Amino acid sequence: MRILFYATATKPAPWVDGLKAALPEAEVAPWEPNSPPADYAVVWSPPQDLLDTQPNLRAIFNIGAGVDALMKLKLSPRTQLVRLDDAGMSVQMAEYVCHAASRHFRELDAYEQDIAEGKWSYRKPRERADYPVGVMGLGVLGTRVAQALRTFEFPVNGWSRSAKDVPGVRCFSGEKGLDEFLAASRILVCLLPLTPDTQDILNARTLGKLQPGGYLINVARGGHLVEEDLLTLLGSGHLAGATIDVLRQEPPSAEHPFWKHPKITLTPHTSARTLRDDSIAQIAGKIRAMGRGGKVAGVVDRQRGY
Amino acid sequence: MRILFYATATKPAPWVDGLKAALPEAEVAPWEPNSPPADYAVVWSPPQDLLDTQPNLRAIFNIGAGVDALMKLKLSPRTQLVRLDDAGMSVQMAEYVCHAASRHFRELDAYEQDIAEGKWSYRKPRERADYPVGVMGLGVLGTRVAQALRTFEFPVNGWSRSAKDVPGVRCFSGEKGLDEFLAASRILVCLLPLTPDTQDILNARTLGKLQPGGYLINVARGGHLVEEDLLTLLGSGHLAGATIDVLRQEPPSAEHPFWKHPKITLTPHTSARTLRDDSIAQIAGKIRAMGRGGKVAGVVDRQRGY
Repeated sequence: MRILFYATATKPAPWVDGLKAALPEAEVAPWEPNSPPADYAVVWSPPQDLLDTQPNLRAIFNIGAGVDALMKLKLSPRTQLVRLDDAGMSVQMAEYVCHAASRHFRELDAYEQDIAEGKWSYRKPRERADYPVGVMGLGVLGTRVAQALRTFEFPVNGWSRSAKDVPGVRCFSGEKGLDEFLAASRILVCLLPLTPDTQDILNARTLGKLQPGGYLINVARGGHLVEEDLLTLLGSGHLAGATIDVLRQEPPSAEHPFWKHPKITLTPHTSARTLRDDSIAQIAGKIRAMGRGGKVAGVVDRQRGY
Repeated sequence: MRILFYATATKPAPWVDGLKAALPEAEVAPWEPNSPPADYAVVWSPPQDLLDTQPNLRAIFNIGAGVDALMKLKLSPRTQLVRLDDAGMSVQMAEYVCHAASRHFRELDAYEQDIAEGKWSYRKPRERADYPVGVMGLGVLGTRVAQALRTFEFPVNGWSRSAKDVPGVRCFSGEKGLDEFLAASRILVCLLPLTPDTQDILNARTLGKLQPGGYLINVARGGHLVEEDLLTLLGSGHLAGATIDVLRQEPPSAEHPFWKHPKITLTPHTSARTLRDDSIAQIAGKIRAMGRGGKVAGVVDRQRGY
């Protein structure tokens, strides 16, 4: 069995060594244009050239939750596309989103600013009932995030393409349920996959439906958000602020208005990092299962795009 | 039935009106030195004079979780002292502590600082197993905090005076268990009641037992912490930082070193605010129960001090 590795923005050696250790029977090597035919590829943002020179791959494993970069490529219909499911990402995502929601709801950023100015301030406690959180996307990550928010007794709404049922969460679904979901939410968390259907879904119309004083937390993909629309709604005061972890272009240009916007907390795509050891263990387990002819979780529906 | 109200730092009218609405049969009034004898008092930091002029109170309800201010006064042995149990405080405390622990563990403060400096930075993800959290005090608040930390998969240790058992938490107890508890913890959360036994418990010796790169979150009382010892351990690098919500003197003087310390996040005693409506409902319920001769939760053991 031969496995290829390719990733932008990470060193291949620890991945190659880790995969070798987990699958001693396999030959594992970084991809090169003249690599011999392999059975599996483990990738992040590969070039089209990799797919063209390796038409016989049984499966491509994406070392991230979102496969939008892969969906833009031409891929043999014989090759299964498998995304990482969880592998330590959902707990990170729950933690990041709860931190952002609590920081805004409890005004912890404002308190820290007061302290920096030498003020021992008092702010009237807010009512949690006035801060319902809406979670867009109820996959592994969205469900975990919604449940973690319930730990802190936020009212939680959920929205997904097809109808779902998550205990403690008021669930909405489909195009029809979107406006009602937005109108019932004040803090909006985006955890959708990026597909042609969800591109630009966070825009003036949808964000404008949120309750006044709304707050956006985008931890999915930059392509979900029309960035100028967010600026407009922050300017008008309809939105009180935003925590943004993903941008259309990463890193953004030095002139990007989010860097210094007083109502935007920007972080460098850090809400849920791929954890190498957990990911290697998961991928190795799936390769072993596929070798035995078994089915594995996380196979992408190419029609649907996730 | 007559009820008196006294509190520093809050207006009496909404409390008096709320208690009247919840107990229509009662006469409720702010305390004055010549108030007629009352059955109950609802207080925060009352003067000794209130207790001296009202020797026949059946119970004094403290509108906070900690009764250390009341324990310094001379109180008739006939009067029960009742603290607020929960009343919306434990969820706030869990939220505040998780926010502080996650902010440190995930380096979210450092990422925000990087962004402020125009850097789209990458920091190697930390291993959660390297950040065990120790919660001192396993009452209503401590238990809720420990369980919330488990939501984010932190290893959690707990320490209490008498042995307790909290699912998912490695429990230690008593003087004997303290050093082992500290050595097993890297992030330390103080939620103890302030008593003569726990005064100054966060000092050079105990904080020095934490794992290197330790982090202190004090959300109990300023009197637990020897403030100079924290500064020494931050200076030596044994502690990486601290989040401090309570001080020996609040507000602190303009010269207090915590205001601007780069490794200390200071907030103005806001980790768990008394929520008026929840508190009034709880106190009214207890007064009705006592009127029927029933027992109520939260009666302070004067010997123990909490």
